[in-house]
Amino acid sequence: MTVLEEMGKKAKEAARTLSIMGEEKNEALRLIADALIKNTDAILAANKLDVDNGRASGLSESLLDRLSLNKTRIEGMAQGVLDVAALPDPIGTVISGSKRPNGLNITKVRVPIGVIGIIFEARPNVTSDAASLCLKSGNAVILRGGKEAINSNKCIADVMRDALNKSKLDRNCIQLIEDTTRRSSVELMSLTEYLDLLIPRGGAGLIKAVVENAKVPVIETGVGNCHIYVDESADIDMAANIIYNAKTSRPSVCNAIETILVHKNIAEKALPVIKARLDEKNVELRGCELTRKILGDSVILAKESDWSTEYLDYILAVKVVDSIDEAIAHIAKYSSGHSECIVTSDYRNATRFKNEIDAAAVYVNASTRFTDGGMFGLGAEIGISTQKIHARGPMGLNELTSMKFIIEGDGQIR
Amino acid sequence: MTVLEEMGKKAKEAARTLSIMGEEKNEALRLIADALIKNTDAILAANKLDVDNGRASGLSESLLDRLSLNKTRIEGMAQGVLDVAALPDPIGTVISGSKRPNGLNITKVRVPIGVIGIIFEARPNVTSDAASLCLKSGNAVILRGGKEAINSNKCIADVMRDALNKSKLDRNCIQLIEDTTRRSSVELMSLTEYLDLLIPRGGAGLIKAVVENAKVPVIETGVGNCHIYVDESADIDMAANIIYNAKTSRPSVCNAIETILVHKNIAEKALPVIKARLDEKNVELRGCELTRKILGDSVILAKESDWSTEYLDYILAVKVVDSIDEAIAHIAKYSSGHSECIVTSDYRNATRFKNEIDAAAVYVNASTRFTDGGMFGLGAEIGISTQKIHARGPMGLNELTSMKFIIEGDGQIR
Repeated sequence: MTVLEEMGKKAKEAARTLSIMGEEKNEALRLIADALIKNTDAILAANKLDVDNGRASGLSESLLDRLSLNKTRIEGMAQGVLDVAALPDPIGTVISGSKRPNGLNITKVRVPIGVIGIIFEARPNVTSDAASLCLKSGNAVILRGGKEAINSNKCIADVMRDALNKSKLDRNCIQLIEDTTRRSSVELMSLTEYLDLLIPRGGAGLIKAVVENAKVPVIETGVGNCHIYVDESADIDMAANIIYNAKTSRPSVCNAIETILVHKNIAEKALPVIKARLDEKNVELRGCELTRKILGDSVILAKESDWSTEYLDYILAVKVVDSIDEAIAHIAKYSSGHSECIVTSDYRNATRFKNEIDAAAVYVNASTRFTDGGMFGLGAEIGISTQKIHARGPMGLNELTSMKFIIEGDGQIR
Repeated sequence: MTVLEEMGKKAKEAARTLSIMGEEKNEALRLIADALIKNTDAILAANKLDVDNGRASGLSESLLDRLSLNKTRIEGMAQGVLDVAALPDPIGTVISGSKRPNGLNITKVRVPIGVIGIIFEARPNVTSDAASLCLKSGNAVILRGGKEAINSNKCIADVMRDALNKSKLDRNCIQLIEDTTRRSSVELMSLTEYLDLLIPRGGAGLIKAVVENAKVPVIETGVGNCHIYVDESADIDMAANIIYNAKTSRPSVCNAIETILVHKNIAEKALPVIKARLDEKNVELRGCELTRKILGDSVILAKESDWSTEYLDYILAVKVVDSIDEAIAHIAKYSSGHSECIVTSDYRNATRFKNEIDAAAVYVNASTRFTDGGMFGLGAEIGISTQKIHARGPMGLNELTSMKFIIEGDGQIR
């Protein structure tokens, strides 16, 4: 047995006892939150190793920022764990049920998925975040973080596992893979005997690699090439305001927009207003010919590749379209199926957009930045699914569960 | 572009228009049912080619039976299509919704998955069956059947596509891959740009190959190593009756049982009664040492491999267990997670079994043969999922859908 197979076996055993736990899970989560605070110094010392290594190997400032922990961030992690403990337990919820004509009672109930693998990059807070969501939903978790954060992740995982020792839960409900070479992630993707689900959390490259190589079931998360279509009937100030928010409030996240489509009949009036707002943050515009005719040569001419790029930066592609049909067709062609928005005052166009756009979140007159588990009222999220199987959009605790049918009879045969 | 990429592209286009259809889908299904009946002679002629080829190449009688069509079977296929047309349309159903504190209205609605691939073996009726379920749930389908049935499948697919020509639907809502070499199935499994879901329907070998090789999302169906545990408190006649039904009413299907576990305190009384019933159908028993002590040497000694074998035949493995704990542990180790049953009169043991057994369908005092979309009241099914993601147990129309969030605002920003 390889190290990972051993871990898989232990996780499966841990998952079996975890599946019937109730309040014991919340108690364990509170012990974990406590332990994170109590071990702040040790976690910060381990984190310093990672940050020093990262700086020495030339990580960018924004990556170093994601990697760095401090007292406040660890308090935030602990509070996150407590917040998850306070959420309602999804396990055992009755989803549906009926009595069949032959007298059988059939009930469909929520059960844990079993063993979940999480592959993530250089954000050590994901360790406690993902582990607590998996644990609350009754799943054992195997974490595989990026090498940049390995010292932090090991320390955090040890703290959590030691806390589990004081609880009624098996410490193997949480395990961390210490090997951060490509070998371990490839093996994790092939662990069909033990892993019920694998969730990659990170950039487009990581997600593509997992989708291409995994033999276990995967949920894709995160890539967002999001659009706002400004209909000819739009309130221009509302459009400018929503675009400004969706582009500049946090450009590095997946629910930020990357392209706006503007109806030709409103473009001459709307584009200057939109540009004026975006100029406040020096957003670089890459526009079609018509956009440049209206806004001038300061707008860079967009190339074909701009329509499919997730900039995650202060850059926005702009296209003038002839009709809502062209807007819908453009989105169908280039969207990653994350969040799409129409700004309109026209009822029929709003309805068409809602019906015809195929994305996890379809907006009318609101910023795409709301695509988030907390904002949607799910309490917490483990990611935003951009695939259509199992879960789509923000994934909360319910999305970390499976179901089973319970059939009760009195000797019925078929 | 390869042939399959062309098909994928056409399917994606067809799926886009199909996604907003309503009654047009039912009209198309009725046209298909009609066309199947009208073209009975052509279908039978094509089927005769397949059956003759199959006989010449030495297919077994049971495979030839699965492959063979006749007038009654084609009427059954047409009726199946009409039955699907009569089911409620899942698309557009509101799954949940809420008004958020900031005034956003969020509604989660059912939408089609998009393009579904089905890989199946030598049963031509799957062609119309799978196509009608996909179409009703708003999905374009790409079918890839086994080479043994290629003439039948081509004829049936042509008949269906010609019927779509008379409807408001794109004929490319249904497409059949004519290349039945391994190449085409491998390429289909890798068609990530166009395929949203792949469902294999067939034996364990086919399903394993798809799970191991597919890059697109897959739902595993069908493998059933199912157990009945006879608790010490069981009504012996009920147990014998359920076992007889679950083993012999149709041994070749996935919800038939393969092993029974009998509590030691009831084994001496129960096993002879159970054996007497099974003897009516000459069921071969493969038992543990204790079973043989009770039933005699006519029972073959079970090997380790018997506990994990899906016989799909008149063979049953028998094990005497010390306790319900041993029964639960045995099932946890060997079950394929399909259907598991306890026969008991004890409330606590029934409750433990329901809670602790991890399977798609968990039975108390009823035959496992009920695990079936029709029997569960789903109207029809495309298969029984034995994985935990997206769908588990019988998959009806709802399980062939995805969802999207619609967020309606009045200028909200974050």
